[in-house]
Amino acid sequence: MQSPSSELVLRADHNGITTLELNRPERYNALSEELLDSLQQHLDQIAEDTSVRCVVLAAAGKAFSAGHDLKQMRGKPRLDYYQQLFQQCAGVMQSIQQLPVPVIARVHGIATAAGCQLVASCDLAIASTEAQFAVSGINVGLFCSSPAVALSRNIPTKHAFDMLVTGRFIDAQTAAQWGLINEAVAPEALNEAVAQKVATILTKSPAAIRYGKSMFYKQQQMDLASAYAYAAEVMAKNMMEEDAAEGIDAFIEKRTPNWNRSSQSF
Amino acid sequence: MQSPSSELVLRADHNGITTLELNRPERYNALSEELLDSLQQHLDQIAEDTSVRCVVLAAAGKAFSAGHDLKQMRGKPRLDYYQQLFQQCAGVMQSIQQLPVPVIARVHGIATAAGCQLVASCDLAIASTEAQFAVSGINVGLFCSSPAVALSRNIPTKHAFDMLVTGRFIDAQTAAQWGLINEAVAPEALNEAVAQKVATILTKSPAAIRYGKSMFYKQQQMDLASAYAYAAEVMAKNMMEEDAAEGIDAFIEKRTPNWNRSSQSF
Amino acid sequence: MQSPSSELVLRADHNGITTLELNRPERYNALSEELLDSLQQHLDQIAEDTSVRCVVLAAAGKAFSAGHDLKQMRGKPRLDYYQQLFQQCAGVMQSIQQLPVPVIARVHGIATAAGCQLVASCDLAIASTEAQFAVSGINVGLFCSSPAVALSRNIPTKHAFDMLVTGRFIDAQTAAQWGLINEAVAPEALNEAVAQKVATILTKSPAAIRYGKSMFYKQQQMDLASAYAYAAEVMAKNMMEEDAAEGIDAFIEKRTPNWNRSSQSF
Repeated sequence: MQSPSSELVLRADHNGITTLELNRPERYNALSEELLDSLQQHLDQIAEDTSVRCVVLAAAGKAFSAGHDLKQMRGKPRLDYYQQLFQQCAGVMQSIQQLPVPVIARVHGIATAAGCQLVASCDLAIASTEAQFAVSGINVGLFCSSPAVALSRNIPTKHAFDMLVTGRFIDAQTAAQWGLINEAVAPEALNEAVAQKVATILTKSPAAIRYGKSMFYKQQQMDLASAYAYAAEVMAKNMMEEDAAEGIDAFIEKRTPNWNRSSQSF
Repeated sequence: MQSPSSELVLRADHNGITTLELNRPERYNALSEELLDSLQQHLDQIAEDTSVRCVVLAAAGKAFSAGHDLKQMRGKPRLDYYQQLFQQCAGVMQSIQQLPVPVIARVHGIATAAGCQLVASCDLAIASTEAQFAVSGINVGLFCSSPAVALSRNIPTKHAFDMLVTGRFIDAQTAAQWGLINEAVAPEALNEAVAQKVATILTKSPAAIRYGKSMFYKQQQMDLASAYAYAAEVMAKNMMEEDAAEGIDAFIEKRTPNWNRSSQSF
Repeated sequence: MQSPSSELVLRADHNGITTLELNRPERYNALSEELLDSLQQHLDQIAEDTSVRCVVLAAAGKAFSAGHDLKQMRGKPRLDYYQQLFQQCAGVMQSIQQLPVPVIARVHGIATAAGCQLVASCDLAIASTEAQFAVSGINVGLFCSSPAVALSRNIPTKHAFDMLVTGRFIDAQTAAQWGLINEAVAPEALNEAVAQKVATILTKSPAAIRYGKSMFYKQQQMDLASAYAYAAEVMAKNMMEEDAAEGIDAFIEKRTPNWNRSSQSF
C-alpha cells in the first residue's frame, strides 16, 4: 500500500529544528519520483524559512533508504525519462548542500545506492551501529554513477571504487572510519546522539553558521589562492555582523553570548 | 641475467581474467624502458580486447616492484632521455586508469618509488601483510615527483608528504588504513583474496562496469554541478542497456541475472 | 605584559635547522597583527636563505596558538581592517607552503582557530598526546572560514564540517587518524620525535627536497594528465642534478651519498 504523495516526506518543526522523515516504509523508502518531488519541495521551503536552524533527515520503518524505485524505473524505459529522473535526484542532493543550515542524516537499517548518496550528501551523518551502507546498483546492472559523485567526495578513492564495483555492504564503524558518516552509536543511543549534535549547533550564531556552510563547499572547489581570497572576504563580512561582536565581547567578559536570532542580513 | 624483452611482462588469460605478471625478478621487477614498453603494449591490447573482464597486476619473485631501473637511467644522462622515460612511465600509469575494466594490484614484498606508484594507479589493491611501501627516490637524490601524483590522490596530504620527504617504509596495515590499498591479508591468503575480489567483479554486468569505471575518474576532476550533470547522463544511458533491464527484472523476480556477455555497445 | 614586537617570533638556527618559536605565551600565542607581521618577515627571510634545510614551528608557554587576537580585532571594527587582517593571515599560511624547505609544526597544548590552521598549513606536524585541536571561531559567532581552507585540504569533509559547526576539540590521536597531524607522541617524547624527523630530512639531498616540495602542492591542484606532464618534467630536471647522479651512484656502490650542500641551481 502506497502512502499518499503529500505524506511521502513528513516535516515536523520544533524550536528551530526541522525533521524531514522519509515516509515510504513499506518500500524501504525507495526514492520514487513522487518522493523526490516531495523532498525537493520541502528543501525549497526550508531554504526560504529563516526560522529553521538545523535539519534532521530521518526515515520511517526498517531502513533509511533503498535508493531509487526500481519497479517504477522499469515501467518507463525511455532515455529522456531516465535523464530527467537522475537530474531530479541530483537536484535534491545538491539542494541539501545548498541549504543555508546544517543537515544531519539520522541513519538506521540500510542505506543503499541513492539512499547511501543521500547520507553522503548531508553535511553530517550519525548512524546506528546496525546500519549498513552500499552502492549496490552494480548488482542490478546499473553502476551507481550519481552516488559515486557524493561518495568519492567523502571517502578515499580506492575504498569508493571497491564499494562501487562490488556492491558490497560496509558496516557503520567502517563508514565512520572512512569518513562517510561522523559517528556510529548504539541503536538505543541514536536519537540522543542526534539530539545532542543538534543542540550543540543551536547554541551557535545562526548568522555565522550560514556564512560558514555556504563558504565551506564553495572554497573546496577552488585552488588554494582563490579559496583563501574568498574565505578572507567572507570572514571579514562575518566579523562585521552583530553576532561576532557579541560573541567576542561575551568571550572576553566570560559570559554566554546572546545571538541575534532574527538576523536577516543574508 | 636479463629476461628477453618479450617476457618482461607475462600475460595469462583465463575465463575473462587477465593476469599481467611483472617478470624481472632478478632485478626486483625494476621498471626498465623495456619493461614499461612491454607493459604499455599489454595494456593497449587489453583495452581493445572485449573478452577481458578484469585484470590482475602481479609480480614474480621476492618483490612487487622496486621502481625505475636506476642503473639504466644513470647510463643515459640526457635531459631529453629522462623526459621521454618519465612521460612513458606516466603513460603506463594513466593507461591503467583508462582501461575499461578494473585492475587489481596483487602486492607482495616491496613496492617502492614507481613500484608504489603502480599500486596507487590500480583501481584496487590487495597486499600481503608482509608487503611494504615507500616512495624512496628521495634517498638517491631524486624526489618521487611522478609517484607523488598518484600517491596524493590516494592518501591524506600530510602522510603523502611525509613518505615523500623521508622515503620511509609503511607496512601493509598502514597502507590499508590510509587508503593506498584496499586490504592487507596474510601471505598465504593473498591469492585467495585476489581471486575472491575478481570472482565478485565477474558476477557483475560487463557493460555496467565499463560505464562506471570511465565515469568514476572523470567526475572526480569536475566541480560538483558538472560531475552530477555528467553522472546523470551516464546513468541514463546505462539504464537503456539490456543488462540494466535484465538486472532489475531479475532483482524483482528474485532470480540471478543473465548478463549480455558480448555487449559491444561501448 | 606584551613582549616587544621584535621578539614575538624567535628564530634560532643550528646546522641548517631553523626553529621559529611563537613567543607570546601570556596570550596563548594569539596571532596579533604584530605577531603575524613578525612571522611573515621570518618566512620571507628563510625563503631567501639557502643555508636553511628544515624549519620547525614551535611555541612558547602552555599552548601552541589560540588563533587570532580577539581583543585586538574588536578594537578596530572596520570592514577594511578585517579584510586586510585576514589577507595577512592567509598570506602567512601560504608562505609556509611556498617555502622551499619542509616546515614541521611541533604542537603542544591547544591549537585553535587560526592556530589549528597553522598546524594544517605546515607540511608535517608532530603533536604531544595532550595536544587538542579545534576550529572554535563558531563559539564567538565567527565561522572559521580561513581555517576551513587548510583543514578541509587535510581531513575528510564530514569531519571538517563537524569541527567547524560545533567548535569541538579533538585529541591528538584523532587528529593523527584523520590526517591533520602525522603523529601523536607522549609529551616527554615530543622534542625527540621532532628532532628525529628533522634529522631524517637532513640526510636527504637539499636540491631534491626543493624540487619536490614545490612540485607536490602545485600538482595537487591540476587534473591528472597535467599533473603527470608537470611531474615528469620536474623529475627529468631533478635527474640532471649532480645530487641525483651522486645518489644513484652511491646506491649502486652501496655507500653513503655526499650531497652538494651549496647547490644554487634553483
